[in-house]
This record gives sequence, C-alpha cells and structure tokens, in this order.
Amino acid sequence: MKDPIPSKEEFMQVCDRVKPYVHKTPVLTSSFLNEISGASLFFKCENFQKMGAFKMRGAINAILQLSDEQKKAGVVTHSSGNFAQALSLAAQNLGVKAYIVMPENAPNVKKEAVSSYGGSITESKSTLEARENAANNIVLEKGATFIHPSNNREVILGQGTAAAELLNNFPNLDYIISPVGGGGLIAGTALAAHYLSKKCKVLGGEPFGADDAFRSFQSGKIEENIEINTVADGLRTQLGDQNFPIIKKYVSEIIRVEEEEIITALRYIWERMKIVVEPSSAVALASVLRKKEKFRNKKIGIILSGGNVDLSNLPF
Amino acid sequence: MKDPIPSKEEFMQVCDRVKPYVHKTPVLTSSFLNEISGASLFFKCENFQKMGAFKMRGAINAILQLSDEQKKAGVVTHSSGNFAQALSLAAQNLGVKAYIVMPENAPNVKKEAVSSYGGSITESKSTLEARENAANNIVLEKGATFIHPSNNREVILGQGTAAAELLNNFPNLDYIISPVGGGGLIAGTALAAHYLSKKCKVLGGEPFGADDAFRSFQSGKIEENIEINTVADGLRTQLGDQNFPIIKKYVSEIIRVEEEEIITALRYIWERMKIVVEPSSAVALASVLRKKEKFRNKKIGIILSGGNVDLSNLPF
Repeated sequence: MKDPIPSKEEFMQVCDRVKPYVHKTPVLTSSFLNEISGASLFFKCENFQKMGAFKMRGAINAILQLSDEQKKAGVVTHSSGNFAQALSLAAQNLGVKAYIVMPENAPNVKKEAVSSYGGSITESKSTLEARENAANNIVLEKGATFIHPSNNREVILGQGTAAAELLNNFPNLDYIISPVGGGGLIAGTALAAHYLSKKCKVLGGEPFGADDAFRSFQSGKIEENIEINTVADGLRTQLGDQNFPIIKKYVSEIIRVEEEEIITALRYIWERMKIVVEPSSAVALASVLRKKEKFRNKKIGIILSGGNVDLSNLPF
Repeated sequence: MKDPIPSKEEFMQVCDRVKPYVHKTPVLTSSFLNEISGASLFFKCENFQKMGAFKMRGAINAILQLSDEQKKAGVVTHSSGNFAQALSLAAQNLGVKAYIVMPENAPNVKKEAVSSYGGSITESKSTLEARENAANNIVLEKGATFIHPSNNREVILGQGTAAAELLNNFPNLDYIISPVGGGGLIAGTALAAHYLSKKCKVLGGEPFGADDAFRSFQSGKIEENIEINTVADGLRTQLGDQNFPIIKKYVSEIIRVEEEEIITALRYIWERMKIVVEPSSAVALASVLRKKEKFRNKKIGIILSGGNVDLSNLPF
C-alpha cells in the first residue's frame, strides 16, 4: 500500500505529466488590494484555466494514471459542479469516455456545459446515496473507473500543480491561501508548498456556513457539515480520508469567514481586478482581510479557484 | 496651424511619452470565441488599464503636453464617465490639479471614484450647456486648461497607443475593431494602424441606438445623435471636429449592432473569457459576430475599452 502522503518525487512527476494538458494560468496583482490588505497579494488565476477552474488539473492527472484498458472503459464521477465539466473535458482531450451522474434537479446550464465537453449524463435523484448508486451501476455495467472529485490521490496531486506554478514564479511567498471545499485543492497546495518552499505556509479559507475542515482540524478527525449555508457553492462539500491526512500534516491553519466578508471580497475582485471569479474563490481573500494583523507586510499567494458563475444569479 | 492629421513622427513620440505612465495591457484569446466567430480574435484588454479604461492613455498624454505654467494651473473637463476618472488619476500621478464638472445627478459611485483619484468635483445641472458653462468658469477663474474627453488632438493620439501595443505584439492583424463613442479611441486606433501596419484596416462598432458615426461616415459631415438608446453607456457621445477628419480618412467601415447583439457579446466575454468589461467593450465583438462572412479566417484585434461597470445594475 502506498504511503498516504505522496512523496516529492511522485508530486514532481505529476507536475511534468499534467503540464502539457493545462494552461499555465497568469498571476495578477492589484495595488488597491495590496493597499487595503497591507500585504503583497499574488492571485493565481485558475478562473482562466481550461473549463474555468483548477479542477481540470486533477481530472487530467487522474485519467493519465489509468492503464490503457481502464482508459478504454471510461471514467465516471458524480458531481453537479466544476468536476463534472473537468472530467468531461479532460476525458474528451484524452480520447476517453466520461460518464457523469448528475442530480435530476441540476440546473440546465450545468448539464449543457457537461454535454458540450462530451460528458455522457446519467440523471439520478439528488440524495448522495442515489448518486453513489448510479455511479456504482456504471462502474459495474461499463467497467468504468470511478474518480472522486476531491478524495482521490491523483486528483489531489493534480490540483497541487497550480501552487507549484505559483511557487516557481514567486519562490519567496510567506503564505499560500486556498479555499477549502472537498479538500483536494488545499491538500495538493500543501504538498506543493511543502516540497517546493522552505518557508511558505499553507492556510485554508472556509465559510462559517460550511466549516467541516475547521472543526476537523480542531478535533483531529473528519467532522461533517451539519447545516450548510454559504454563497460559496463550491465549498459545500466534505473532506475525505485521502486528503485529510495531508491537510492535518501540512496545513497551518483554517480561517473561517462570514458570508458578508465573502461577498465583499468577491466584489473587490470583480470591481478592482476586472475578472470574473466564483464566490468560492473570494474566500481566500476574505480570510486575508479578516486577519490583517497576521498578514501585514507578508507575501501571500491566493488561489482563485475558478470563474464559473451564473451571471443571472449574482450575490450583488 | 498643425495639419489636422497627426504625422507618424508625432504619433511615435506620443507612444514613447505615454509608455511609462500606463500599463501595457495583456492580449487575451478565447478558443470558444474563435470557434463561434470563425476568425482569430486578439482582445486588447484595456479593462486592465489603470482606472479601468483606455481613457488613461489620452489623459496622460494631454497633461504631459502642457507647459509647466499650464500644469501649475491645473486641468478641467466635464464628464460623468471614465474620462473624469482618467483625468483625475493622470493629473494626480503627474502632480497636477484636476477640476471635474459632473452633473448633479451623477451616481454617487462615480463621484466617489473621481474623488478617490484626487479630482476636485464641481456639480452642475445636467444639460450640456450648464456643464460647458461650469467648465468655462473654471478655465476663467483658475486658469486651468480644458481637456475634452475625446475631441482633443493629444487625447486622440494617446488613445491610439493601445492599438500600437497590440500591433507591436501582433503585426499581422487584418483588422482592428474598436467601439465608437466620442471618436477619440477609433481615431487614435486608425492612426496607429495606418502608421504601423501595411494591411491592417480599422473598423468601428457602434450601437444602432447611437449611430452618429455611421451616419456621419455616410454623409461626410458630422451628424448628431437624436434619440439615444443603448446599454453601451460609453458610446452615447458625439464625434467631434478633431477626430472626424481622421476617422473619415483612415477608418474603413462602421458596423452597427443591435442591443441584443451587444448583450450576447458581453455575456460571452464575461462567461467565456472570465473578465469584467463594460457593455461598450462588447460592441466590437458583436460587430464580428454580426458579419461573420466578412471576417471568416481573418486575424482581428478587438479593443476591449474598459471594465468599469455597476455590478448592481447589469444587463443580465
């Protein structure tokens, strides 16, 4: 059995493997946001990634690690969010079939996005059990490989390549902050910082309304979200047993933020940086603005996780 | 008296003069927009310019061309839009006082933006006559130099530096398309293409609901907007006698677009390119999508004019 913590060698191989299939996204700065935060902020713009989110990285790596036989039988996931699109597009780019289980009440715009990337949709009831059953059936019937959106070693490693690019460009960062949802992005980010920097600490930003990671971090075991209430729809998911050991070992702190803080940070990014990002992406900036004393005069990488938003349903 | 058409030498001097004071904005591409247009599109992102619009370029050039004595007495304009902010910030950066006449009913957010860049606001009634009178009074009382937002030789030349940067990066463009409002941007763009490219033609995009440039282009003399009705609020202004001779000589065509076409193009830019641009910025893309046959397989530069929008009042 593999060590639950991937090695530096394994991580560096992933960086090389993923590179040809993803955009090297730009890093933006904002003199206004530096001024109001009192820090130097470096925004890694995964909203400009293929299909609009960092999830492309993990999906590509997970499929590339399959055997030829596995690739022939296809991949399956259940997701109504970015990972559904990411797995569809990654599979399409690699000539692999992707089966996507989506809740029957998922918005049409999301189903259309998955279809446009070549994903084959199976609808299920919206309970987790129904979605898992539908995915299991596809595994049994088609021989497809199930790929979890965040609790999968290869997905975690792939997500870490965003932070690796950031640290290659800006090796002197004191901190990298990423949003925490299912835990794949922050676990991969923590591995990247651990292996590529001597001093860079990784922190997570999380809404009070979905603070499973904060509480898990406190108790040392995976805690569940009970009542979920946040505009950051990408962060409503749970940590898992593949990413939590990495988070526990290599993440320094989880900072929780209020909904108004998320919306204020989101508005700053749209208005001042002139870029479209998801509410989930604003959580890391909101964390910096909430704890200005801690971050004063520090160099901070901020992972902007994605830019897929419904423009007809904005929080401002 | 100077030739109404600035020379290549004069334009190149402006490029050198303006350069240290503005961002060299990035050029973005979108495989999706290339696919649906059938062309290769190169978006010059002036939404990332200082204060969020190309207007910074013309404002900087106009102030830099003043004598020391003139600089000491300050500059004045009347505008409720981007030029008010541009002149304020450009003046602040150059240690010059800026007086901005704004209609008393201008939105608070615009007044605050001008104040935040150090502009000194004088309120007037919202008629053109009242605004001109208020500006004239400041010229008389303070000795300040009046700088028109678009009908000013130095402003026109400054605005052309965006297209100059674009052509330096992509010398093989077949067309550059810019929105047409007051005429400063397109006139400057036409000069840039004329002096820096052998084959690149410049076209203007204009809403049917403010088509003074199209009609002026047809009749050969400046026509007025009668009923103005467009979401592209930056394009509600009139051509002037400084920019029209340049437009007449060096612009190939003005393409008019419907309001729905502007909003569709705007949505594509936000959703697919993940950037925040003003409705006025979408008019050039809308023109390409309206005339696909004309532009098929061509290399087209698109000037995205700016990104200052009211997020609480979006057209979708």
